[in-house]
Amino acid sequence: MADYRKAFRAEPGGKINLGKHDPSFTGKHDSEESAKKELAAYGDELFKQQGLLYAEHKRSVLVVLQGLDAAGKDGTIKHCFTVLNPQGVSVVGFKQPTAEELAHDFLWRIHPHAPGKGYISIFNRSHYEDVLVTRVHKLIDKATWTERYKRIRDFEALLAENGTTVLKFFLHISPEEQLARFAQRLDDPKRNWKISESDYSERALWDKYIEAFEDAIAATSVEDAPWYVIPSDHKWFRNLAVSQIMANTMEDLKLAYPKPTVDLDDIRRKYHAAEAEEKPGKKKG
Amino acid sequence: MADYRKAFRAEPGGKINLGKHDPSFTGKHDSEESAKKELAAYGDELFKQQGLLYAEHKRSVLVVLQGLDAAGKDGTIKHCFTVLNPQGVSVVGFKQPTAEELAHDFLWRIHPHAPGKGYISIFNRSHYEDVLVTRVHKLIDKATWTERYKRIRDFEALLAENGTTVLKFFLHISPEEQLARFAQRLDDPKRNWKISESDYSERALWDKYIEAFEDAIAATSVEDAPWYVIPSDHKWFRNLAVSQIMANTMEDLKLAYPKPTVDLDDIRRKYHAAEAEEKPGKKKG
Repeated sequence: MADYRKAFRAEPGGKINLGKHDPSFTGKHDSEESAKKELAAYGDELFKQQGLLYAEHKRSVLVVLQGLDAAGKDGTIKHCFTVLNPQGVSVVGFKQPTAEELAHDFLWRIHPHAPGKGYISIFNRSHYEDVLVTRVHKLIDKATWTERYKRIRDFEALLAENGTTVLKFFLHISPEEQLARFAQRLDDPKRNWKISESDYSERALWDKYIEAFEDAIAATSVEDAPWYVIPSDHKWFRNLAVSQIMANTMEDLKLAYPKPTVDLDDIRRKYHAAEAEEKPGKKKG
Repeated sequence: MADYRKAFRAEPGGKINLGKHDPSFTGKHDSEESAKKELAAYGDELFKQQGLLYAEHKRSVLVVLQGLDAAGKDGTIKHCFTVLNPQGVSVVGFKQPTAEELAHDFLWRIHPHAPGKGYISIFNRSHYEDVLVTRVHKLIDKATWTERYKRIRDFEALLAENGTTVLKFFLHISPEEQLARFAQRLDDPKRNWKISESDYSERALWDKYIEAFEDAIAATSVEDAPWYVIPSDHKWFRNLAVSQIMANTMEDLKLAYPKPTVDLDDIRRKYHAAEAEEKPGKKKG
């Protein structure tokens, strides 16, 4: 079976040329149908791993989702992560910073949402916006975004040291696919309320965004917090790749249920002896 | 079809005698199997309603789960709410208050977790702990808990006024069923790490807890924030009842997708005219 971690990981220390990554790649699969069974299996595995993560209460997982408009950040959450028990996962969206947030350093609003032990956090956009949209719209200069790369590496290293596994996904789509998705939204009453004219005006900045992503990914893909460039023109393939990478990464953590903190035999003797003699047996199901 | 809202709602202004509510009630169903299809249908409905709630962005839903140890608060979240898109739901557990929390009024740590417009919040334990465990362990007197009932009503009325639908579930189990569940935990390596001796010592306070629940439910079940007493000796029936009540309550909100904020035809003309002429047709799936 294809190992998408190997296939799509941005190698630490390397350069990235997104033009060489085909956004319509689907590997050995030629349709959603052919990927369905695999996707369901990764979902089951994720649910199982999440239960172990929560019980073990030693490690945590942070997922960062980035991509251009309509790349599928919301869709990835819906299709890959609805399998999770909501008790162990939180999704945080980072939009335009508030006045109070802008009055602080760029990581100030991010840090409180780092996952606690046992939990998965999913960032829908993230601290990376501060080296992407701010750069493209010329709100910061090169010295600032270069300095921020270093701050991001330091921040993620702190999380990793504390037991957080960090996975970052760049959802890679073509400009043609983006336009096609905008067109679909126009015709779908369940989604046409999402349309704003700025979706279109941002398209003029496409190459600038790609350049900003290439630099940010190259500067911040490290062993403990790698970036994955996910071919995302086909939603079903994107879901498959993200789910496989998540499931395999969590399996490799070798999570385990903790040992009991009490003497089980002692508890049995003290509190369950009578019960063993007279089993009620009145239960329906 | 049975309407569990009618069957299990604690009537506003009424008294509650939990001794008269059978925790092993399962209505017309006699097994998990017979309830399966219905449960799945409520799950699908909930997922759909959650999408509408999120899109409409006008209302929110707060679910409060309370019950004695092993009543099934965690299980209800896992089995009823894993169907939800994690982007639109957050689960908050309220455990022993911290020193900082204790230095504030009892609603101070609760309020920040009220759901924003478009969101569902699920409280695993809640502000009700401050009229339950504190009362049973004699940390507060009658004047205090009576005053707190009023503060809770006021707090929930504030939320309701702001568009939050509040649903409160008391998961009602028998002491025999609790002991049986503790016994199951002893034999299950996936769960025996959860056992603590205090689970057993709290059983001596069973009647005090029931009394505290009866008073709290009677004092705070109001039209805008009703309590439901859910028969919970059978986990599958508990899941069915909670799911039905949630799904029906959300359906009654008559949620709707918002209207587009732009002129769709204008957008089509300006940005999609060329595309309509030369359809790419290169997509795989």
